[in-house]
Amino acid sequence: MHKMAQVSLKESERIDDLQRAGLKIIQDPGRFCFGMDAVLLAHFTNVPDDSNVLDLGTGTGIIPILMSALTKAAHLSGLEIQDESADMADRSVRLNGIEDRVTIVKGDIKEAGGIFPRASFDIITCNPPYLQGGHGITNPGDAKAIARHEILCTLEDVVANAEVLLKTGGKFCMVHRPFRLSEIMNVMHEHHLEPKRMRLVYPFADREPNMVLIEGVRGGNMRIEVEKPLILQNPDGSYTDEVKEWYGF
Amino acid sequence: MHKMAQVSLKESERIDDLQRAGLKIIQDPGRFCFGMDAVLLAHFTNVPDDSNVLDLGTGTGIIPILMSALTKAAHLSGLEIQDESADMADRSVRLNGIEDRVTIVKGDIKEAGGIFPRASFDIITCNPPYLQGGHGITNPGDAKAIARHEILCTLEDVVANAEVLLKTGGKFCMVHRPFRLSEIMNVMHEHHLEPKRMRLVYPFADREPNMVLIEGVRGGNMRIEVEKPLILQNPDGSYTDEVKEWYGF
Repeated sequence: MHKMAQVSLKESERIDDLQRAGLKIIQDPGRFCFGMDAVLLAHFTNVPDDSNVLDLGTGTGIIPILMSALTKAAHLSGLEIQDESADMADRSVRLNGIEDRVTIVKGDIKEAGGIFPRASFDIITCNPPYLQGGHGITNPGDAKAIARHEILCTLEDVVANAEVLLKTGGKFCMVHRPFRLSEIMNVMHEHHLEPKRMRLVYPFADREPNMVLIEGVRGGNMRIEVEKPLILQNPDGSYTDEVKEWYGF
Repeated sequence: MHKMAQVSLKESERIDDLQRAGLKIIQDPGRFCFGMDAVLLAHFTNVPDDSNVLDLGTGTGIIPILMSALTKAAHLSGLEIQDESADMADRSVRLNGIEDRVTIVKGDIKEAGGIFPRASFDIITCNPPYLQGGHGITNPGDAKAIARHEILCTLEDVVANAEVLLKTGGKFCMVHRPFRLSEIMNVMHEHHLEPKRMRLVYPFADREPNMVLIEGVRGGNMRIEVEKPLILQNPDGSYTDEVKEWYGF
């Protein structure tokens, strides 16, 4: 059982129930709340028992916090560049009493290869900003803009640092937008994180996919398993059984 | 209206009705019969009016023959290396009386860049052999083995020759197996046929895809549109409406 610690909340923050093993998370709707993307990524990633896991750009800490319940990972680290987000994620970890398994580190993805020991992780996850460029962003310090646009790091920054930090045979798992799939596969290949498993997420069975889940293996060969479609909603708008299970509805 | 010419048939050959504009095709079940792959590719490919089209490794000629009815292409060429197949495809063209729009050329994909004028095609299609290597093939002259295994040409041979033959902005459309998707995207990118459109073909909505349709644009930028899933069969095994329409059921 987790011990629920007392942590302080800022005025704009709230505590949400993750509907999973009693886990809770602190979020600030004015900054950024985690989306379905992060939940899908946490479920897509196969984490071996006793493995060492890192989440790049962890934001609220949703991915390592969820994985603390979903997996038997030995340790889960989350790297976050923004002070307020890192502090909030750290308080969520303490709120859940999982400090022994989850550590939030404040730092820059572009320097991640120097922050953690090289080739030390079995699994690296990332839910990166999806949109290229930050042109036209009025407030580049805005937490939502940073989470959505490649203002502080690019896709290649993420992949290049994951390459340095993964053990040979270690896995990089990412959620992204399908329109960047060709670039994703090229950048992963160039950085020796060969795409090995992919799943497209379709909001409905008769719509274009709006997310892609992809796993690369450090030093893997060029053969990819494309999985069955992940369809989120039935024609009547209700969630499909697979999604319901993940959300504990 | 087409004039139906008299053409000779070999003993092992038969004439099949394509259920489309009265078109017929000569096939030899002992050699190779076209599959659903070719039909899907013919429908996936968007052929502008008056364009110049080439099909690499045309086999029975199914793709240019179907496209003669599906599109308003100015001319459709099919390149085929095997004597018997090229001869059979040519007889199918004459059988349908479409010699004015479809030309079958005997030749090697690896030399295609020298057989046709450079940068002369608007659209190039290919339904290539899917499997790497020809190790363990007892009869490498076997037409079925040549159609399935990369005995006479590799994926890169196809893409490299398409690059030479396409106009800038011209489109390369291919059907292939999903397990080679990463390699496909890398090879197309390296040869400046940037993947711009992709559709995964799922036999059923809850199964892994067994085909991928992909379009690259010569000189395009790195942004891909992933289309809605193409699901072939309903849960009861009947064909979905989209497929029925293509087959004229």
